[in-house]
Amino acid sequence: MKRYEVLAKEIEGSILAGVLRNGDRLPSVRSTSTSRGLSASTVFQAYYLLEARGIIRARQRSGYFVNWSSRKAPPTVDAPSQPANTPISVDVCARVFAILESTRSRNVVPFGSAFPSPLLFPLARLGRSMAQSAKNFEPWDTVDYLTPGSPDLRRQIALRYLADGMQVHMDEIVITNGALEALNLCLQAVARPGDAVIVECPTFYGALQALENHGLRAIQVPTCPKGGIDLPSLEKTIQLHQPAACWLMPNFQNPLGTLMAEDKKKALVELLTRHDVPLIEDDVYAELYFGDKRPLPAKAYDTTGIVMHCSSFSKCLAPGYRIGWSAPGRYARRVAQKKLITTLTTSAPAQGGLANYLEQGGYDKHLRKLRQTLAEQQRIFSQAVGHYFPAGTRATRPEGGYFLWVELPEGVDAMHVHERALAMDISVAPGPIFSASHAFKNCIRLNFGHAWNDASERAMAALGKIVASSAPITVGAVAR
Amino acid sequence: MKRYEVLAKEIEGSILAGVLRNGDRLPSVRSTSTSRGLSASTVFQAYYLLEARGIIRARQRSGYFVNWSSRKAPPTVDAPSQPANTPISVDVCARVFAILESTRSRNVVPFGSAFPSPLLFPLARLGRSMAQSAKNFEPWDTVDYLTPGSPDLRRQIALRYLADGMQVHMDEIVITNGALEALNLCLQAVARPGDAVIVECPTFYGALQALENHGLRAIQVPTCPKGGIDLPSLEKTIQLHQPAACWLMPNFQNPLGTLMAEDKKKALVELLTRHDVPLIEDDVYAELYFGDKRPLPAKAYDTTGIVMHCSSFSKCLAPGYRIGWSAPGRYARRVAQKKLITTLTTSAPAQGGLANYLEQGGYDKHLRKLRQTLAEQQRIFSQAVGHYFPAGTRATRPEGGYFLWVELPEGVDAMHVHERALAMDISVAPGPIFSASHAFKNCIRLNFGHAWNDASERAMAALGKIVASSAPITVGAVAR
Repeated sequence: MKRYEVLAKEIEGSILAGVLRNGDRLPSVRSTSTSRGLSASTVFQAYYLLEARGIIRARQRSGYFVNWSSRKAPPTVDAPSQPANTPISVDVCARVFAILESTRSRNVVPFGSAFPSPLLFPLARLGRSMAQSAKNFEPWDTVDYLTPGSPDLRRQIALRYLADGMQVHMDEIVITNGALEALNLCLQAVARPGDAVIVECPTFYGALQALENHGLRAIQVPTCPKGGIDLPSLEKTIQLHQPAACWLMPNFQNPLGTLMAEDKKKALVELLTRHDVPLIEDDVYAELYFGDKRPLPAKAYDTTGIVMHCSSFSKCLAPGYRIGWSAPGRYARRVAQKKLITTLTTSAPAQGGLANYLEQGGYDKHLRKLRQTLAEQQRIFSQAVGHYFPAGTRATRPEGGYFLWVELPEGVDAMHVHERALAMDISVAPGPIFSASHAFKNCIRLNFGHAWNDASERAMAALGKIVASSAPITVGAVAR
Repeated sequence: MKRYEVLAKEIEGSILAGVLRNGDRLPSVRSTSTSRGLSASTVFQAYYLLEARGIIRARQRSGYFVNWSSRKAPPTVDAPSQPANTPISVDVCARVFAILESTRSRNVVPFGSAFPSPLLFPLARLGRSMAQSAKNFEPWDTVDYLTPGSPDLRRQIALRYLADGMQVHMDEIVITNGALEALNLCLQAVARPGDAVIVECPTFYGALQALENHGLRAIQVPTCPKGGIDLPSLEKTIQLHQPAACWLMPNFQNPLGTLMAEDKKKALVELLTRHDVPLIEDDVYAELYFGDKRPLPAKAYDTTGIVMHCSSFSKCLAPGYRIGWSAPGRYARRVAQKKLITTLTTSAPAQGGLANYLEQGGYDKHLRKLRQTLAEQQRIFSQAVGHYFPAGTRATRPEGGYFLWVELPEGVDAMHVHERALAMDISVAPGPIFSASHAFKNCIRLNFGHAWNDASERAMAALGKIVASSAPITVGAVAR
């Protein structure tokens, strides 16, 4: 890297870190030249570069000013979805696999990834807990850790429920290979092949894949980025189709990032209880809130054991450990049995290592830092979308998690954008994989869980150009 | 423990360890009294105790002699099974759960357990490998270890195939949460709900539970403790019912312990290839052979990718780690996809720890010791069954694994024996859980994978009495 590039990068870092704020005046070329021991022309080159990238702006006879938040986030996505109210068979697996496969290379800019950056997690500290736990591992632990799982780990999880004011007994908790297994086991515990299951539209493609895999049909219910699933539609659908279960994410829904209001969660559970429809609650992003307080799960409002709460440590502490759990209410025994006959139990050393980490403390401190980082990254990513994407683009501004849901100008084909971006080693998650009806053709999901850097800046600029040139009406193009 | 009990236990230990062999004369009471610094009456009491337990015998004017192998193993089980040749729906889960649940307490003598003793495994050495691997864990490993799994671990597994003369490329290998997940994924990859799948009769209850869970029907084919599945019956059944797959254990079948001859494995694979029926090969006991050489899997004879080989480290190295794998031939991609949508991937630290252990060497040395121990324990258990069980009892004498299949005298109800034994804190695995037709009503499976001790001796004596008193015609009892 040349000297002026190093300097430009440093200044950009100060801006991204909030040391230099929007409107701040940069030190003059002369003073920077002196303080850094660089030639004036090197400093000039650095400032030109930043100006060219739209990060600073020269004002005549006044010097250079930070111009970052001239980058404005795009308008928000507000409209509810409008899926047809009929059970349909699901056929998303092949498409999802093709897309996921294409985004696995480390050379690809991971906007389409489902995972946050592994650099966000205290892996060294976890490693020490693993080592400590492995050293003290007793032979009979292999038996004691059998499903439902390590008593120590289940106690730690029960304590975290308690800290949120919830009484979940450790005997209700089943440790699983991540939340994905927990969700799949819950689904199997309450639904038989051919049954219909309610999902939101759009929804996590993993839910759709699970339905497809178990021969279940999906009934899609309208949801809104602002408030979540539409309860009147939900009730109508239940009355019409007697679903075997309802699979929802009240906290920071994937892909919309929606946070359902507490009183709405309560109303949701009451509605489902009235109709005796079990709720499979996917709650893996709840710890990643940007507000003051961890949002409660719908399970907090459950009085009859109808909510099967599923979560994990994969998104907030220990990716790759595959430690998740379910607290499946009245279905706990059935879920444990499904686990026993499919994967028997969860890796004992991983259970022991996590229990050790949680007992030692430090988890909450890590979480506070993680939430701050993600909130900051969301701001940067949102503004970059606003800066580089064409007019007509909208995006969510979720209060937690690490996904932006971006609505591209009408007529832009997200699958097409995905393919063109991938050819440039940039991944995006195209909208059509998030519904059984392959809707949301002009939407993409972007992951802001990776640190912003030069590559992200270049990739977002390139993506903006792809989107702009994919809009059906451009200068010289014929309208479709 | 009293002094004479300590002495008796020591002598018993020498006998069990083979230091004192059958027919050996014990040191005289006087010389033992002198060498141990114990009173003559203490030594006498010890000898009486051992005599009362049938382990030594006094010969008039000659002293005491080891009498252990006056314990003879019972006659072997030779007859093939004769299940009906029709697909039937499976309904074993509830019964299996009830039985497994009852055998989980550590206070219960684990004859009915499915697991070998955790004390047989190098858990401390594994712990060091876990610690080392956790210390060197790189953040991006969490991504690199995603399904199909850690390249290092898959390479180590491929090397073990190679050592057996088999070419299995590491790209074919999918790491799973133990063999049970591997088997379930393979089943899902080739069979759809409603399909029929061939199993042996008797077979591992986990296979039956998997069929039940996935809504598949079982077709049971006769098998024989001496040679394994009957190939002509198998071919006839295939022609009649077009099964979606065949789930077998050619090496040390559970529960019979049968080892299929190499040329028969070859013939089996040829037959299945001819009819295009995939073989799900459960090979978890192969490393536990008592002969000279690891028996080859059926996969060794596969030329078209029709064999889905499944195994794990759970029975031979690392119980509780939940590291298994499949090498599913032409179905590798489908199996990996099923894994991605159900449990995503396998615990990264457990994968890393095992790869580290295998790279460091020492596995084969551990296995040699383990095999010796199990072979020795089989001898002791077999002889104890012969000693304590009533005439008419037969038992297998497998060349590997850690199960005895015991055929009780005709008319003895294994479920009844199970219940009465459990009331005395002794578990057995009753025959009816090993077939879809709930057959083998007078059979039990005994686990000899736990060290023989006083409690085993007492438990086996009690079990023998239960069986004897459960025979339908006993003195003073009315024939049923």
